[in-house]
Amino acid sequence: MEKILIFGHKSPDTDSVVSAYVLANLEQKLGKNVEACRLGNLNKETKYVFDYLNLEAPTLIKEVEEKQPVILVDHNEFPQSVDGIQKASIMKVVDHHRIKEFETEEPLYYRAEPLGCTCSIIYKLYQENQVEITKEIAILMLSAIISDTLLFKSPTCTPEDKEIASKLQEIAGIDIEKYGLEMLKAGTDLSDSTAEDLIKLDAKEVMIGNFKAQIAQVNTASIPDVMKRQAELEVAIENMIQERELALFVLAITDIINSNSQVIALGEKADIVEKAYQVKLENHTALLEGIVSRKKQILPVLSSAAQ
Amino acid sequence: MEKILIFGHKSPDTDSVVSAYVLANLEQKLGKNVEACRLGNLNKETKYVFDYLNLEAPTLIKEVEEKQPVILVDHNEFPQSVDGIQKASIMKVVDHHRIKEFETEEPLYYRAEPLGCTCSIIYKLYQENQVEITKEIAILMLSAIISDTLLFKSPTCTPEDKEIASKLQEIAGIDIEKYGLEMLKAGTDLSDSTAEDLIKLDAKEVMIGNFKAQIAQVNTASIPDVMKRQAELEVAIENMIQERELALFVLAITDIINSNSQVIALGEKADIVEKAYQVKLENHTALLEGIVSRKKQILPVLSSAAQ
Repeated sequence: MEKILIFGHKSPDTDSVVSAYVLANLEQKLGKNVEACRLGNLNKETKYVFDYLNLEAPTLIKEVEEKQPVILVDHNEFPQSVDGIQKASIMKVVDHHRIKEFETEEPLYYRAEPLGCTCSIIYKLYQENQVEITKEIAILMLSAIISDTLLFKSPTCTPEDKEIASKLQEIAGIDIEKYGLEMLKAGTDLSDSTAEDLIKLDAKEVMIGNFKAQIAQVNTASIPDVMKRQAELEVAIENMIQERELALFVLAITDIINSNSQVIALGEKADIVEKAYQVKLENHTALLEGIVSRKKQILPVLSSAAQ
Repeated sequence: MEKILIFGHKSPDTDSVVSAYVLANLEQKLGKNVEACRLGNLNKETKYVFDYLNLEAPTLIKEVEEKQPVILVDHNEFPQSVDGIQKASIMKVVDHHRIKEFETEEPLYYRAEPLGCTCSIIYKLYQENQVEITKEIAILMLSAIISDTLLFKSPTCTPEDKEIASKLQEIAGIDIEKYGLEMLKAGTDLSDSTAEDLIKLDAKEVMIGNFKAQIAQVNTASIPDVMKRQAELEVAIENMIQERELALFVLAITDIINSNSQVIALGEKADIVEKAYQVKLENHTALLEGIVSRKKQILPVLSSAAQ
C-alpha cells in the first residue's frame, strides 16, 4: 500500500501542522500507511508546542508527484495547497473552511464542519472510531484550538469547540489559561523577523468588491512594540502594493491579551477602513476595538463597506 | 428560523429522493426547520417505493431564491443542482460523488464518503446523533441502497453498504431479495416512455479524451424487450448527436437479473467501444458481459481506450 501524505496549508499555522500530526496518528492506529507533513517552516508558536512536548514536527515537503495519495487538513483551495496537488490523488479532506477552487476526479471522504478549529473535527473522528486520545495528542489538539480561537475569545469559536477543549483538558491535565498564554506569547516574538517577513507571515489576498486587496495579521502581547516599527512596515507594504498591484493593504496587529487590533491601512482604497469601522485613520493607522478575527470581523465588514 | 430546503439532483433517482426525505426526518428530530424537496418527477422505481409505504413524496421545486438556505444530498455539482444554486446559502452537503463545479462563500458542513449510496452515509448520521430509525425510514434507506447497488451486485457496492443494509433489514423486517427485485422491476417498465424520453432518463454528458459523449443507461429485466425498439431508439440517438454535437452516444441497456449490458453505440467515435471491450459492434450493438456500472465499468474504460 503506497504511503499517504497528510498536510495542511502553505505558511502553516499551529492548526495546520498539529492536524496533520494528530490525524496521521489516528490513521496509523486504524492500520493505514500515512505520514504527517508540512508545507513550510514552523512559526514560533507551533515550535513552542512541539518543543513543549519534545516531539519531532512533521516532515517538510514542497511538492508531490502525480497520483501521490494525499489527505488535506485545514484547507482545500488548491492555491493554498502543495505544488502538484492538481494531479495528486486526494483520498480525504478534513477542514473547517469554505470550499473553493477544489475538485477531484474520484469520490472521496470529505469532512468539513463550521467549527473554530480543524482539531475539533479530528477529536470527533477519534471518538467515532473509538481510538483513545493520549495525553500528548490531547495537548496537541488543545494547542490548535487555543491558537485558532485566541484562547476562546475569537468570534470564530463555537460552543462545540469549547466543549471539546474542556474534554481534552481533562486528559491533558494542564492549566489551559497559563499554557495557552505562554504558547500565544511565544508566537508573538517577532524580534528576528524583517518587516518584509512580518507582513507575509499570515497574509491573504482577496477580492473586496471589485478590487484586489491583501489582509495580513500578526498577533502581539503589546501593540506599541510592533508600532515602533511602523515606518519600516509601511515601506514593506508599499512595495507589496506595487508588486501585487493592490488597491488596499491592511495589516491587523492583534492584541491577544485585550482583544483589539491596531490596523495600518495603505493603498488608494484605504478610506474603506474608515467607512467600514467609523474610525479616522491618522498617520495611516487606527485602533479597532474588539476586532480579532479576519474571517468574521474584517473580511465581511470591508466587503459590505465596498458595496 | 428560515426553512431549509433539502434536495437531490435533477432527473432524480431513488437515492436522491429518499435521501432528501430521510435526512429531513433526521434534521426535524434534531429540532431543525427543514423540508424535503425534489427537482423532477418521480421515476417508476421511486414511485413504487413511496406507494409501497403509502407516503407522500417530497415537494417538487424548480428554483430557489437568493440566500435560500439549502442542504444538498446525492450531488454537489452546480449543473446537476437546482436553478439559482449559485446564490443560495448552502448549509450542508451529504454525498458520495467526486467534488466538482462546487463552491461556497462560507464554511459549511460537508460529509462525503466513497460508499455506494448516499443513504449509507445518512444511516451513519442517524447513529452518530443517536436518533432512532423507524421501520418506515429503514425501508426507505434500504430501497435507495438496493437501487444504487442493483441489489448489491454493482461494483460500486462496498462491504460497508452491505453491512448497513443488513442492519437496516433487521429493522425493516422485509425480504430484501423479493422486495428489491419487485422495486427494480417496477423501474424497468418503460412501456409508456417514448424513445426520446428513454435515452434521456438517466444520461450523463462527459468529455472522453478530447471529445464530447453521452452515456445513457436504462435498467431492464429483459434486454430483448428493449431491443425490439432499436430502430426508434437509434433515430432518437442520432437526433441527440446532431443537437448536442456529440462524437459518441452509448446507450447501456442493463439486465438487472443477469448483470449484463447490451449497448447501442452511435457517432463517429463508436469504434472506441470495440477497442475498450474487445467486442465487435454488429448493427451498432454488442453485449458487454458483467458490465452494470457506468461510474466504475463504462466511463473509465472508455476514457482509457481513448488515450
